[in-house]
Amino acid sequence: MLSEKTIEELRGIVGGEHVHIGPAELVAYSYDATFQQHRPDVAVSPACTEEVVEVMKLAYREVIPVVARGASTGLAGGTIPVSGGILLNLARMNKVIEIDKDNAMAVVQAGVVTAQLQKEVEKVGLFYPPDPASLNQCTIGGNVACNAGGPRCLKYGVTRHYVLGLTVVLADGRVLRCGGKLMKNSTGYQLPQLFIGSEGTLGVVTEVILRLLPLPRVRSTATAFFSKLEDASRSVAAIIASGILPATLELMDNVCINASADYLSLDLPRDAQAMLILEQDGNDEAAVRKEVERMAEVVKAQGAFLVKVAATSKERDDLWKARRGLGPALGRLSPNRFAEDITVAPGRIPEMVHRLLEIGKEFGFQILVFGHAGDGNLHPSILFDNTKPGVMEQVEKAAEAIFDAALELGGTLSGEHGIGTLKREFMEDALGPVALSVMKDIKKALDPKGILNPQKVFPQRASRKGFIMALPTLGNDLPG
Amino acid sequence: MLSEKTIEELRGIVGGEHVHIGPAELVAYSYDATFQQHRPDVAVSPACTEEVVEVMKLAYREVIPVVARGASTGLAGGTIPVSGGILLNLARMNKVIEIDKDNAMAVVQAGVVTAQLQKEVEKVGLFYPPDPASLNQCTIGGNVACNAGGPRCLKYGVTRHYVLGLTVVLADGRVLRCGGKLMKNSTGYQLPQLFIGSEGTLGVVTEVILRLLPLPRVRSTATAFFSKLEDASRSVAAIIASGILPATLELMDNVCINASADYLSLDLPRDAQAMLILEQDGNDEAAVRKEVERMAEVVKAQGAFLVKVAATSKERDDLWKARRGLGPALGRLSPNRFAEDITVAPGRIPEMVHRLLEIGKEFGFQILVFGHAGDGNLHPSILFDNTKPGVMEQVEKAAEAIFDAALELGGTLSGEHGIGTLKREFMEDALGPVALSVMKDIKKALDPKGILNPQKVFPQRASRKGFIMALPTLGNDLPG
Repeated sequence: MLSEKTIEELRGIVGGEHVHIGPAELVAYSYDATFQQHRPDVAVSPACTEEVVEVMKLAYREVIPVVARGASTGLAGGTIPVSGGILLNLARMNKVIEIDKDNAMAVVQAGVVTAQLQKEVEKVGLFYPPDPASLNQCTIGGNVACNAGGPRCLKYGVTRHYVLGLTVVLADGRVLRCGGKLMKNSTGYQLPQLFIGSEGTLGVVTEVILRLLPLPRVRSTATAFFSKLEDASRSVAAIIASGILPATLELMDNVCINASADYLSLDLPRDAQAMLILEQDGNDEAAVRKEVERMAEVVKAQGAFLVKVAATSKERDDLWKARRGLGPALGRLSPNRFAEDITVAPGRIPEMVHRLLEIGKEFGFQILVFGHAGDGNLHPSILFDNTKPGVMEQVEKAAEAIFDAALELGGTLSGEHGIGTLKREFMEDALGPVALSVMKDIKKALDPKGILNPQKVFPQRASRKGFIMALPTLGNDLPG
Repeated sequence: MLSEKTIEELRGIVGGEHVHIGPAELVAYSYDATFQQHRPDVAVSPACTEEVVEVMKLAYREVIPVVARGASTGLAGGTIPVSGGILLNLARMNKVIEIDKDNAMAVVQAGVVTAQLQKEVEKVGLFYPPDPASLNQCTIGGNVACNAGGPRCLKYGVTRHYVLGLTVVLADGRVLRCGGKLMKNSTGYQLPQLFIGSEGTLGVVTEVILRLLPLPRVRSTATAFFSKLEDASRSVAAIIASGILPATLELMDNVCINASADYLSLDLPRDAQAMLILEQDGNDEAAVRKEVERMAEVVKAQGAFLVKVAATSKERDDLWKARRGLGPALGRLSPNRFAEDITVAPGRIPEMVHRLLEIGKEFGFQILVFGHAGDGNLHPSILFDNTKPGVMEQVEKAAEAIFDAALELGGTLSGEHGIGTLKREFMEDALGPVALSVMKDIKKALDPKGILNPQKVFPQRASRKGFIMALPTLGNDLPG
């Protein structure tokens, strides 16, 4: 519990209306897109970097945990305030400070919603490629914290490829400005890169300088359907080997195809075991079309029984509906879903998909497979009903098997969601003791009092057993 | 001086023939591509990561400085062993371990020469874009240490955009493996990114996993000539604003044009004040050609009096000769040259070019301007004769004025060469005290004994006055 004096000081910094301490109000700041929940002691919504500085100075002096969040759409528990303390809600810091057309750059506050930025820059012919599924809610600050991706990453890269500069409030309240409006920079350590993907454990990012690209004038999309999931997954390497770098290469399995078709009343071949969405973009219509047709040939040679190329942008939007609507579509299939984010080298996707199907059989779950196949990032999802006794223990075992399989294939725990609380107990398995120790040294150097997003990313328990059961879940922390 | 026992131990690690202590032999390990020179106590050439581990364990135990180097083509003194100690020559570690065609990735030892890797991957239809001017000598390890770039960075990015994983031997000899064959990775801190651009001050990079792209099938190149340097520099923003992301956008001023024309007997318009090299690449010949033609229109509208589009690849190679031959061509103009590497936002190039010309006038030097204009990275070069009394003091003042101007325009000290010894005294001006202090904290966490490339990157003197004069130069350290 924080003292009344501390709460008063916070009110003095951000204004009384931006400080919340009522248990019912705090529920809104206690969860993310996982099943976890834990209330902070206070939620504080600053308006600018200077207010974040004052909050951090106070927190540093009084040794209070601080968890920064944007829209809290995270899928790994990264913004759950598991240690209580101050929840720093950056959603009010939602200003696009500048769209610099001459330099193709944008300067934004951390709370700007990703899709809002994309729309604004597209109005002036520019393009911000990273497009996580939650793009209509999630914020640039959160994207930086998790090094977010999306379907366009094979060709365009992830968030870290677009961050040129950051304003970061450090644990003790000092303001670090690093990078700048610079396309190239070999002046000292690449500090912006250190904060990207650090999930709020090293500092609070308040402003971001982003690189933009010219908006491609043309897009062309095709879908390919396969009677064997393995043929679809083998097609990924074949397309890349054909010399084409597609803008998108998305994979959905039979369950996902049917869930989407039901949910959106789409006419999709119900018995297809896999579907690939293939997209290319560029400035020249004929050239883009030619590459999509070439990809169609490649997937046919790999065994696709049907390939549809969208003739109009309306048809293209329809093709995307199946993929974009997957979240809610899958939500109807079972009461609960445990959605993961493993990544392997793209060439190992067939093997990983095979392992996932085996794991599903072994533990008696339906495990769906979809994801950004082009870059090896899969979102296997375990469907379950957590009211059934003992089911969470089984989910835990199946998830463990999924992580182990990814690591055995040279892959990793997360491609774009981050580690948060959910996967922290697997970090030593994933990185090894030396990398983990280097991370700890850096953490200690930048956050000596350990107040920034405590209990995240780093392992907290002696064993990974019970890694889900030990998390604070919905229902454990309802308002009194 | 190192003890005979230490030298013997080093011989035991790498083999006697790979340890050099003779003063004459050590000269070969005492310089880079600047004017600096300082001999190490011993030069050691390991064959593999395991040998580097043993060398580092010894150096850590005995607190001996270690400077790693590849080809020592650096332009900032980064590999000069200014504190003596062990010069760790990684040139023997020149194995391309794997070209993984399915995943479009390569695994290489640090001593692989950049152009050699490029040739090998091109044989199988793949492409490694970063292309520093010294690509025929410089090594991937050095490219990682300096976050090297080259003419293709506007479209393709710099070294850090291609590094997926690193093997690093830490100060105490532990082996850090970070990243992997992973296109996306949000599993913990982005450790590979921390080592990129750290100039050997945080660890010794021994192996690198690189991302490759499909090799573009077509390239098209044009040159544009201007009667005003400002029109050329304004064209850069105009091309980007036209929605085109060129593969290359290089700038050369009148002196550079004439030096190249003389050196290579090329037929170039001698009175042109500036030349731009414009290049686009892609898979579709018509589309690529169309974009080059569109760029030609844009530069004409900005005042280019002549635009030549290369009709054949022979013609294209001739156009590039002028740019690639610039180093030796300029070498003939004056006994000495001080070549810098400042970077500004591309839109500020006209202002930066104007400032450079003013600085030349003020200090009585000819200052050439050429560089990667598309990404704002310029290499202004001061021509001088250091046998003239007092000239180095004046060079120092002019260089200071160049750095100050770049920083005033929101730019930075280095786009691709790094800081080394040459620009270390400007780091606080460039980064501010907070960023510098964060860098120091990270350095201390990873290299607590300060044995890795001492006296580099960080300021060493109370004032920047005398920043060149204080460096160990050729002639100060000739073999006895």
